[in-house]
Amino acid sequence: MSRLDHTKRFAAAHAVKPVDGAAGLGTLHGIGLGPGDPELLTVRAVRLITEAPVVAYFAKKGRRGNARTIVDSWLKPGVEELALDYPVTTEIPFADPAYVDALSAFYADSAERLAAILSAGRDVALVCEGDPLFYGSFMHLFARLEGRFPVRVTPGVSGMSGCWSACGLPITWGDDILTVLPGTLPEAELTERLGRTDAAVIMKLGSHFPKVRRALAAAGLTARAVYVERGTMAGEKVMPLAEKSDDCAPYFSLVLVAGQGRRP
Amino acid sequence: MSRLDHTKRFAAAHAVKPVDGAAGLGTLHGIGLGPGDPELLTVRAVRLITEAPVVAYFAKKGRRGNARTIVDSWLKPGVEELALDYPVTTEIPFADPAYVDALSAFYADSAERLAAILSAGRDVALVCEGDPLFYGSFMHLFARLEGRFPVRVTPGVSGMSGCWSACGLPITWGDDILTVLPGTLPEAELTERLGRTDAAVIMKLGSHFPKVRRALAAAGLTARAVYVERGTMAGEKVMPLAEKSDDCAPYFSLVLVAGQGRRP
Repeated sequence: MSRLDHTKRFAAAHAVKPVDGAAGLGTLHGIGLGPGDPELLTVRAVRLITEAPVVAYFAKKGRRGNARTIVDSWLKPGVEELALDYPVTTEIPFADPAYVDALSAFYADSAERLAAILSAGRDVALVCEGDPLFYGSFMHLFARLEGRFPVRVTPGVSGMSGCWSACGLPITWGDDILTVLPGTLPEAELTERLGRTDAAVIMKLGSHFPKVRRALAAAGLTARAVYVERGTMAGEKVMPLAEKSDDCAPYFSLVLVAGQGRRP
Repeated sequence: MSRLDHTKRFAAAHAVKPVDGAAGLGTLHGIGLGPGDPELLTVRAVRLITEAPVVAYFAKKGRRGNARTIVDSWLKPGVEELALDYPVTTEIPFADPAYVDALSAFYADSAERLAAILSAGRDVALVCEGDPLFYGSFMHLFARLEGRFPVRVTPGVSGMSGCWSACGLPITWGDDILTVLPGTLPEAELTERLGRTDAAVIMKLGSHFPKVRRALAAAGLTARAVYVERGTMAGEKVMPLAEKSDDCAPYFSLVLVAGQGRRP
């Protein structure tokens, strides 16, 4: 995306306001559910989920989906549900054009399914794990629907906040720099970035975990690294990375390296 | 702090569990209040604030304090309040030994005030703006009290999440790297770091704002930068940085540069 595109996009985001005045259109609410514990929804998230006639969520085909599980105890009886089922899994490499095409078609189709509901004047609560605008699938529908319909975003507690809180690890002190790194990055880049930050969060581990572990070792950070799996959820695991004996890391896991900044 | 200290500290955090079993001690709850809108407290935060006999918060001397303002509508009548008043303002340079000494004595004194309550078997809800373990003052009391008393942390929506949600700006896409930079860093370092990241959040602006603006310009990012003041609160201001004509940026302001990563 060029800078001009960005500026236009940002202007479009601010142009959402006039759309609010359009009679008869429903509002799309992108609602962060937080890191997994249902008690970590915000008060506003609960209110909007209770008020909306339709609750939508992403899920892997054939599964209930984590967002649906988190929101379960907050759904009012009889609410209409809309599952948006991913057509492909992360087993296909992201760079594969077939993956990009399939996902692009999926987001376009999902946006039109929501548009049909919004055009009928009904609000939709699209509920999302973590925070909607931080690596969220919601963003792909937001980009397709903002400007056409009123869109409102309710931030959520991020997965990383849930994880460092679950293990009682203050992540940044004083003037610490925090770097958030996807585990998908090349090993050399991970190593270099880890060597030049005060604090780090490494997300999207999965099959990248052995590579991430090597990068942390090369940066001399193994002893400071903490592994967290399913933070704030049932089955939560927290351990120093050095004590993790296998190379199995599910999607809902990350590695934390706390900063060491100013402590009066 | 050496790596060994860190490992010991982390072990101590996990040793909190045995302390839970100690009869007669109150629990210290570090509770994130989110970015400012009282509706962005989590359900758990509201529950704990309602249950605790004592609610504590940091404030600048002579002021009510932003945490106290955010929590106002959630306090139950008659709850005991404990204001922890900072002895110094941020006008003194952080590097000044007098500042460090004054702050150190303040945190030690505050920790003992809480310890007296906890020792009497009473729980304390220490409420904090944003997320308690992300650049939070709470961390200085956490470090002094963990291991002595049961401590539980409830994460909150971070100020930066509140800000990018307030202006409808998706911050990280696909494999974007996010760098969180305190505005207190030297200009050359800010420029260099900004030039090597996909997305950025620059916090702690205040008097550093003109320097931050120069660093963004030097990194070629002015056109992509968004300025947010008092995100989610009364008096919220959002504008492209290029349109901000003055150099006045209060403490509750930050600059966002969104990533431009993969968008199927």
